[in-house]
Amino acid sequence: MAGKKSSKQANSIKVGIIGFGTVGSGTVEVLQKNRDIIRDRVGWEITVKKIADLDISSDRGISIDPDLLTTEAMEVIADPEIQIVVELIGGIDKAKEYILRAMEKGKHVVTANKALLAEHGKEIYEAAEKNEVSLAFEASVGGGIPVVRSLREGLSANRIHSIMGILNGTSNYILTRMTQKGLPYTKAVEEAIEHGYAEDPPTLDVDGTDAAHKLAILISIVFGVPVTFKDIYREGIDRLTPEDIQFAGELGYCLKLLAIARDLGDAVDARVHPAMVPLNHIMANVNGVYNAIYMEGDFVGPNLYYGLGAGRKPTGSAVVSDLIYLARQIRQGIKQVIPPLAHVHPRRDKVLVQPVQELMTPYYFRFSALDRPGVLSKISGILGENGISISSVIQKGRDLNGSVPLVMLTHEAKESNVINALSQMNGLEILTDKTMMIRVEAS
Amino acid sequence: MAGKKSSKQANSIKVGIIGFGTVGSGTVEVLQKNRDIIRDRVGWEITVKKIADLDISSDRGISIDPDLLTTEAMEVIADPEIQIVVELIGGIDKAKEYILRAMEKGKHVVTANKALLAEHGKEIYEAAEKNEVSLAFEASVGGGIPVVRSLREGLSANRIHSIMGILNGTSNYILTRMTQKGLPYTKAVEEAIEHGYAEDPPTLDVDGTDAAHKLAILISIVFGVPVTFKDIYREGIDRLTPEDIQFAGELGYCLKLLAIARDLGDAVDARVHPAMVPLNHIMANVNGVYNAIYMEGDFVGPNLYYGLGAGRKPTGSAVVSDLIYLARQIRQGIKQVIPPLAHVHPRRDKVLVQPVQELMTPYYFRFSALDRPGVLSKISGILGENGISISSVIQKGRDLNGSVPLVMLTHEAKESNVINALSQMNGLEILTDKTMMIRVEAS
Repeated sequence: MAGKKSSKQANSIKVGIIGFGTVGSGTVEVLQKNRDIIRDRVGWEITVKKIADLDISSDRGISIDPDLLTTEAMEVIADPEIQIVVELIGGIDKAKEYILRAMEKGKHVVTANKALLAEHGKEIYEAAEKNEVSLAFEASVGGGIPVVRSLREGLSANRIHSIMGILNGTSNYILTRMTQKGLPYTKAVEEAIEHGYAEDPPTLDVDGTDAAHKLAILISIVFGVPVTFKDIYREGIDRLTPEDIQFAGELGYCLKLLAIARDLGDAVDARVHPAMVPLNHIMANVNGVYNAIYMEGDFVGPNLYYGLGAGRKPTGSAVVSDLIYLARQIRQGIKQVIPPLAHVHPRRDKVLVQPVQELMTPYYFRFSALDRPGVLSKISGILGENGISISSVIQKGRDLNGSVPLVMLTHEAKESNVINALSQMNGLEILTDKTMMIRVEAS
Repeated sequence: MAGKKSSKQANSIKVGIIGFGTVGSGTVEVLQKNRDIIRDRVGWEITVKKIADLDISSDRGISIDPDLLTTEAMEVIADPEIQIVVELIGGIDKAKEYILRAMEKGKHVVTANKALLAEHGKEIYEAAEKNEVSLAFEASVGGGIPVVRSLREGLSANRIHSIMGILNGTSNYILTRMTQKGLPYTKAVEEAIEHGYAEDPPTLDVDGTDAAHKLAILISIVFGVPVTFKDIYREGIDRLTPEDIQFAGELGYCLKLLAIARDLGDAVDARVHPAMVPLNHIMANVNGVYNAIYMEGDFVGPNLYYGLGAGRKPTGSAVVSDLIYLARQIRQGIKQVIPPLAHVHPRRDKVLVQPVQELMTPYYFRFSALDRPGVLSKISGILGENGISISSVIQKGRDLNGSVPLVMLTHEAKESNVINALSQMNGLEILTDKTMMIRVEAS
């Protein structure tokens, strides 16, 4: 396409942006401030030709020619000069429509929309293939960390055995504050909102949905087919207490909201939940709004990628790295070198997710128990009957709401057995509150 | 090239390997064991057509058709079916000759040869451009960690302000053992040799040369032009003592062999030396044979990449990721999408390295001083005359070889002033041994 233009025009690749919020303005800022190095690296200019947003009057802190702005997304898609459409509005229906329309018009697409890719990826990946365009989505996972590219290319020689990600900066910030300052959950959430690290309310961040969206994308690249997002087990951080964080510390662990995937051969173990991580594991040092992805491949061994997982600038960096990637291809007259999920012939039709009931892992329990004889025996008896063996116990005389905390770490046990045991304990009059259960990882 | 072949042949990309040592056999092992997923991801097979090595009789622990083996490297280069030549013999002269010859014949080249790229990269990068072939060298830095790809692509939207790398696994293992077990340097080296983590003697690993080679490659990608390797200041770890590691710990630091680069605008601060790293910095947790690269970009912010920096399997993973990268291009009929140093039009002709005498950084000093009145005053006086101000002092009554250690941390000072001050102290009879000087980083 570009190759046929006159030399002056051909020196510039035209981009249209749909969505001029945080990430959109970050993207424009990168393109403006680093225009010189981008031109040096690509060989051609990358120029923003149109920006669509419902709000075209607010000040985004960057100077922009008002003629570029439109309230009509379809104007961006219809512009024949625009070769790459960047979708940054988020949400599902409109974003999907815009992306599919752009692809039908032969335009390459860059998106940061993890929810859309996790829930409707199949349709979009197929549209890219059908229309012979490239789809790039580095910004959808891990903010500025080039983890999508690393999975698609850097680790492409490996069978990826496992992924362990801290993929949501908001919940990691909340857990970090709870850990470092002993704050209760609600107080840490308030702080996160004050600092602009969380929306109010931060539902999709703290309930595991956002991290699960990102995990679904990573798993899809590993196997080359979209995973069914709703099969990924999700559990949030809102029930965690400073007491659990303190007990975890005494046992040599910290608490992280982990996104976990393990290749089981015929299925994949995929889940997002709070987990105990050993303090000497490198993931235990990922604090605040930072994200990290720890992966193990059969040849590369353990690999960690760490950086800011959100925000205008890091996400802008990821979007523009995708624009550079596509611009380099366009300059060579290429439509697609790597398919969206980095597999030309995926081996499977679909990725089966193992039900969480089948999980085998060690567990942490905190029982709120009356401080009377026979309690430990009763509880450990029920665990034993369910094939759950205990590896350590902390029992302290501390009185919390008329009862004492009884903390146990188990050896590896089956989740369905844990569910049975805890339900058998329901209604025991020696237990004064719901039992806290946290899975233990990487130990 | 491939596109013109009949469909049966076209389904396989033929590779020739020169050098069948550790990395060569790791590469073949990846191609054999992961043949299925590589084919799924590339769409075509990657087949080893010839392997050249002076030793074609030793058992490498993998089964290989003996007909593939030859002692003549030129046989690999001359084979018209081979589209990618993998150079894994290391060293300079022969490796360079083979690479240049292969490029002249229109073959793409993959190499793991950091010494060659760091010292003679210009000639090789230019040959790739002139012959319109691709050059890939992921395995030259950080073993299996895809840091070359991350710099060339993932962070391509950024001005990279700084790089801080633990790039040599051997010296990191030695320092880790000295730290964790209090071993003296020579004892830790012996252990590293026993475990196969070091050659005997491990000169280029412990004197900083290997890390400087890798740093030179990373800097060259950042600016798009080769840096002059000999201008990079290098200092090894052999003079470090368990006492210094212990004092560092008391001051809140650990000791790492760091490869450091900072963009100063008109020049680059580039150096490899032992450095004190704050214990709460994520780089302080990089232990054993692991490597890590910490980079700061103007938009992405801090990024860390971590993994195994050497060894048959991780390095094989990196080489094969390059083969996949090239195979995906070849399948599309493309010769080169990204130039070797990832810049089509580099801004500068050369990268100037700032002389280390100009460095401004805090310093650690350990003086071996006689335990008598006036010593502290004399030493701090000389430092003060040279504009060096002290931020903390540890003086203990411990008698080491008839003298006591006097440890100081300074505020930021200029290296030339430090050199002056230490030379003015030479011959002071209150100092009983050479003064230990270690630079402090990231504080």
